[in-house]
Amino acid sequence: MSGNTFGTIFTVTNFGESHGPAIGCVIDGCPPGLPLTAADIQHDLDRRRPGTSRHVTQRQEPDQVEILSGVYEGVTTGTPIGLLIRNTDQRSKDYANIAQSFRPGHADYAYWHKYGVRDPRGGGRSSARLTAPTVAAGAVAKKWLKEKFGTQFRACMTQLGELPIAFEDWEHVPHNPFFAPVADVQQLEDYMDALRKAGDSCGARIRVQATGMPVGLGQPLYDKLDADVAYAMMGLNAVKGVEIGAGFASVAQRGTVHGDSMSPEGFRSNNAGGIVGGISTGQDLEVSIAIKPTSSILSPRESIDVHGASTEVITKGRHDPCVGIRAAPIAEALLALVVMDHALRHRAQCGDVRQDVAPIPASAA
Amino acid sequence: MSGNTFGTIFTVTNFGESHGPAIGCVIDGCPPGLPLTAADIQHDLDRRRPGTSRHVTQRQEPDQVEILSGVYEGVTTGTPIGLLIRNTDQRSKDYANIAQSFRPGHADYAYWHKYGVRDPRGGGRSSARLTAPTVAAGAVAKKWLKEKFGTQFRACMTQLGELPIAFEDWEHVPHNPFFAPVADVQQLEDYMDALRKAGDSCGARIRVQATGMPVGLGQPLYDKLDADVAYAMMGLNAVKGVEIGAGFASVAQRGTVHGDSMSPEGFRSNNAGGIVGGISTGQDLEVSIAIKPTSSILSPRESIDVHGASTEVITKGRHDPCVGIRAAPIAEALLALVVMDHALRHRAQCGDVRQDVAPIPASAA
Amino acid sequence: MSGNTFGTIFTVTNFGESHGPAIGCVIDGCPPGLPLTAADIQHDLDRRRPGTSRHVTQRQEPDQVEILSGVYEGVTTGTPIGLLIRNTDQRSKDYANIAQSFRPGHADYAYWHKYGVRDPRGGGRSSARLTAPTVAAGAVAKKWLKEKFGTQFRACMTQLGELPIAFEDWEHVPHNPFFAPVADVQQLEDYMDALRKAGDSCGARIRVQATGMPVGLGQPLYDKLDADVAYAMMGLNAVKGVEIGAGFASVAQRGTVHGDSMSPEGFRSNNAGGIVGGISTGQDLEVSIAIKPTSSILSPRESIDVHGASTEVITKGRHDPCVGIRAAPIAEALLALVVMDHALRHRAQCGDVRQDVAPIPASAA
Amino acid sequence: MSGNTFGTIFTVTNFGESHGPAIGCVIDGCPPGLPLTAADIQHDLDRRRPGTSRHVTQRQEPDQVEILSGVYEGVTTGTPIGLLIRNTDQRSKDYANIAQSFRPGHADYAYWHKYGVRDPRGGGRSSARLTAPTVAAGAVAKKWLKEKFGTQFRACMTQLGELPIAFEDWEHVPHNPFFAPVADVQQLEDYMDALRKAGDSCGARIRVQATGMPVGLGQPLYDKLDADVAYAMMGLNAVKGVEIGAGFASVAQRGTVHGDSMSPEGFRSNNAGGIVGGISTGQDLEVSIAIKPTSSILSPRESIDVHGASTEVITKGRHDPCVGIRAAPIAEALLALVVMDHALRHRAQCGDVRQDVAPIPASAA
Repeated sequence: MSGNTFGTIFTVTNFGESHGPAIGCVIDGCPPGLPLTAADIQHDLDRRRPGTSRHVTQRQEPDQVEILSGVYEGVTTGTPIGLLIRNTDQRSKDYANIAQSFRPGHADYAYWHKYGVRDPRGGGRSSARLTAPTVAAGAVAKKWLKEKFGTQFRACMTQLGELPIAFEDWEHVPHNPFFAPVADVQQLEDYMDALRKAGDSCGARIRVQATGMPVGLGQPLYDKLDADVAYAMMGLNAVKGVEIGAGFASVAQRGTVHGDSMSPEGFRSNNAGGIVGGISTGQDLEVSIAIKPTSSILSPRESIDVHGASTEVITKGRHDPCVGIRAAPIAEALLALVVMDHALRHRAQCGDVRQDVAPIPASAA
Repeated sequence: MSGNTFGTIFTVTNFGESHGPAIGCVIDGCPPGLPLTAADIQHDLDRRRPGTSRHVTQRQEPDQVEILSGVYEGVTTGTPIGLLIRNTDQRSKDYANIAQSFRPGHADYAYWHKYGVRDPRGGGRSSARLTAPTVAAGAVAKKWLKEKFGTQFRACMTQLGELPIAFEDWEHVPHNPFFAPVADVQQLEDYMDALRKAGDSCGARIRVQATGMPVGLGQPLYDKLDADVAYAMMGLNAVKGVEIGAGFASVAQRGTVHGDSMSPEGFRSNNAGGIVGGISTGQDLEVSIAIKPTSSILSPRESIDVHGASTEVITKGRHDPCVGIRAAPIAEALLALVVMDHALRHRAQCGDVRQDVAPIPASAA
Repeated sequence: MSGNTFGTIFTVTNFGESHGPAIGCVIDGCPPGLPLTAADIQHDLDRRRPGTSRHVTQRQEPDQVEILSGVYEGVTTGTPIGLLIRNTDQRSKDYANIAQSFRPGHADYAYWHKYGVRDPRGGGRSSARLTAPTVAAGAVAKKWLKEKFGTQFRACMTQLGELPIAFEDWEHVPHNPFFAPVADVQQLEDYMDALRKAGDSCGARIRVQATGMPVGLGQPLYDKLDADVAYAMMGLNAVKGVEIGAGFASVAQRGTVHGDSMSPEGFRSNNAGGIVGGISTGQDLEVSIAIKPTSSILSPRESIDVHGASTEVITKGRHDPCVGIRAAPIAEALLALVVMDHALRHRAQCGDVRQDVAPIPASAA
Repeated sequence: MSGNTFGTIFTVTNFGESHGPAIGCVIDGCPPGLPLTAADIQHDLDRRRPGTSRHVTQRQEPDQVEILSGVYEGVTTGTPIGLLIRNTDQRSKDYANIAQSFRPGHADYAYWHKYGVRDPRGGGRSSARLTAPTVAAGAVAKKWLKEKFGTQFRACMTQLGELPIAFEDWEHVPHNPFFAPVADVQQLEDYMDALRKAGDSCGARIRVQATGMPVGLGQPLYDKLDADVAYAMMGLNAVKGVEIGAGFASVAQRGTVHGDSMSPEGFRSNNAGGIVGGISTGQDLEVSIAIKPTSSILSPRESIDVHGASTEVITKGRHDPCVGIRAAPIAEALLALVVMDHALRHRAQCGDVRQDVAPIPASAA
């Protein structure tokens, strides 16, 4: 109700602040009998971790996860899974200068007016650091979905600032710090180096995909699968736009083109992005998100202080000049959490997903 | 849980099928003491009603709403408001030919696989007709928000198929069947006439706006105001994309441009679309949505039947060749429902919204 | 959130007032494929209906239910089931005298202070008339549970005022207006006749039972099956106490007696009432509830009016001198709704209930 | 949904097992601006703590709480409050002998059948140890309610096994290990000593009270205040019965006696226990609960093992021979959590509680 729990059956309740003692989450509703160790979770945390290239924040956080409950002898028991990550590399003094003023485009202003108090250290609760527990929970969902249905999740960058990134192959994604699906990222490196020198920041576009999707996930009328995907993605820090399938391009399409025709061999196209009427078709889920430029930048900005007086803000501290660079594993996790929750919701009402459906889905990767 | 209730405190539970006896909803959590009559609701229902121009479905539905409960002597009592709309103009025989096959791009296929049964008449539960109760509930939310905060909602079409519609003035919107913010809609009329003759359909882009917004609405971490706006909009039939503020254009913006600077006189811009860190700033909410072309079209499409065999589908019946044309009042209603729910959620945790905040918001209309 | 929805997956959203146009509910989350007609529901509504003996209110309400949605060709589709019952026999003028004063023990006082407005006609929203939609929804749950697991529900009166009613046999229950498990109810008839002449009212104790229970329903830590049973029962109008199994008698039991020992042939006793650790054991659910005497009575009572001034209240209108008499079918319905919701919750997390468990449960009827 | 979260707006998500690394909870929805330190919480944890007298389990747990988030500079910020309590005195080997068999009356059997796996150490998730985080969360609720409304909570033992305890004064409660409202507890000491020697256990009855209650808390129709109190209390380990106000005694009362008459000076009695129509009247909340005897006892019991074969169970380990002895602070906490959640729910829909109501409530302490 107060917005810190994700999901309805497979729920993730997130807590923590950027510079508090710890962050973490409680996963409730995980099916019993899933083999699970901290290493299963650590892999995705490491992909999201700061300090891994010169293009992201230099904060050094090992982000070691501890499983506090819900697992006995290496297997989930069906009881809540408590996950804890200690904060270790806080430099709270960096934030003294912004405690009394508001960074343009940052949550500072809104938090102050909402709560009357705020923890200014590292953005407090509004920090992208709080995506770490989400990633941890997503790793649990991913594991169950892969074992149960063979569903898998991946994400890549398709635009950096004004640079479009032409898709080459998924195999390149793990081999560069941008999660870019291209072999050569020199242009991206140069772009970021110039940006950092300018004390500025830029946005990014990320593509997120689920393959091996079960058919029939999603609830009418309101909790459609695409509605919940949009909720999840728009809730990721800095996201300003979400598309499913053909997205905004579908406005200019004709119905004779957009509607994915079907043959006994499968769908002929995937303009729907794997969802019609709010329910999964078994085709790949295709999602694209727009991430705005970071608001914490070194360049001076016109602003006001908490008394409404004019001031100039320069954000020191250690920030990502493009938060989109580390967004891929987070977006994957969010998509996995949505699919996981809908898989359990479907099972509640309709029983196990029908696995015997006709050989329809044939979407290209 | 099963997806037919919108909201968490101001909840709308929707029921009905396109060709069943009735559709309607139950609004729970409405504050007591709000003057309310059926006429307050009917106004928005009439704006959404089919059969009002040659460019929309010719189904004739008066959509008369009956208030069944929750109002005593013209005032809400705080108990659930039951709203009922009888269906009167069903022609179910039109659907006999599609009961055994799937329209490309339509919910048919997914419903069939999810539930094992489906009501094929008029799309059953997946029909856009089910947006009528949403509009009715939105009218109640709009009334309370206007009285309480002066918040108001409006929407207009900004693109029809491949035709961009340059914004002239909000005052034009009620005077043409397209909800277009332009004085002359001849081009749009011609476009639709040609499309209808071709037996095809097209998409649209809709802009939705809330003015007079309270500051501080929205919950971190997951139930951000923008996350819930995205959820609401993507859940509207046929929507494939959602943007807040600068949206996808923010990818190519620099941080020095995107972050809305502040002065004692107010914000200098509204790239944020009225939301930072998931919380309202008091600036206007600015939302844009992409609506795909209707999947029910007269042109023949390749498809399969329920046995997986090849077939050709032609959809007769009465359909909107562009569902985006009637989307404006629905999108307004959804935005109003999101803001309403967040207003009550805010009040639950933080008490009444602070009305004494500095004269910051100064966004242009 | 505002208290008019029961359940979490199989949800029942109730609306209406005693003297408004209609009452009803929306059932969401019902599994698809269940054969369902109005007659399935009407049977239980008729058991609860007023005006069927001289010992209950003489209001004549046929309570005819109309299914508005969610059923197609006699089978549930998985979409919301809208149920409507028109009010037909309101005599609102009976309530003019109590609109400005508070009946001792009645909800009048609390509603007035909570909402600032109230519908005084027949108790408005607080009327026991609003249990009719609950009974209707319960009938749907009962049908599914019987078909799926063989689970069945029944209730009987075990005490009327100060008269204990010794259990003889369940077969007597349908054959007398008290739902008493005895062949001869003359003593109960005489008791009620004397009470009615005295212008007074009395309480009752009701036993509720579920047989054929699946093993494993109930969630730790908070949403235990017994916790939700207690919630459901205490929420029934006029209930002041709830017991499970040995109930208050368990305080004086020793652990060596209370804990139900087990043998390969089954449990040796059922002090637990079918629930340990909040989870069903497969033994019969055994619940007992205390119902207070009706607060709407003809005898004059000392009270105050809405201005706080002293007054005397006499309640005319048509009331049950013992609301416990009609409570049996309502209590059954509530227990069925709890079990139904937990059956679906269990399935969400754990998959289908294990039907292959050892031949443990052997509780006596 | 999976039963480990309490409340709807002020939510407490509990995690942990008796012998895992840690237990704790996440409180979401706490109003900002509440002064809060670990010491505020520790006081109630110490009252619940094991090992404080010879009549309770000898497990030595300091139960030191660590606040992980949600508090900045000693004040709540409105973000989730993470609370952590490390387990320190586990003796898991004590449980080896019961890992393969079921204690009569214990959750063992049901957990095994529900999940297919279970953590047998100390009862795992079903242990009363998991009430510690509930008590911690309750302390936060208590503090806010006291500051906001002057509402306070207390509980005492009114029966131990078959011994009734005549109420003398609340002031005695903190001065004996039984939370008994009497000056001399020698009889209770002797009773427990004999019981312990016999290797047996007994039940208890606990009275719980809230004073200084706001008027108007509670939601019709289902989430009545008394329904949620019953839910909370019946969910406490070992509780088998709940009464509000006159409870089961109300069955034999007449309406002319039960209904609490009102005068300008206040209510004349409190048979209602402070709640009518599911909504608080401002009188004291009066609740009574029945606690069954502990199922983990030294005396041998007939049972079965996981293969369904006959066996005999003796429970070693360290157990409370009467779990009711430590129940008072837990029951207080649960009542506080219910009132807290309803206070925020009320505020959401109706705005701040009306503090200007007539001088009605005058219930005796």
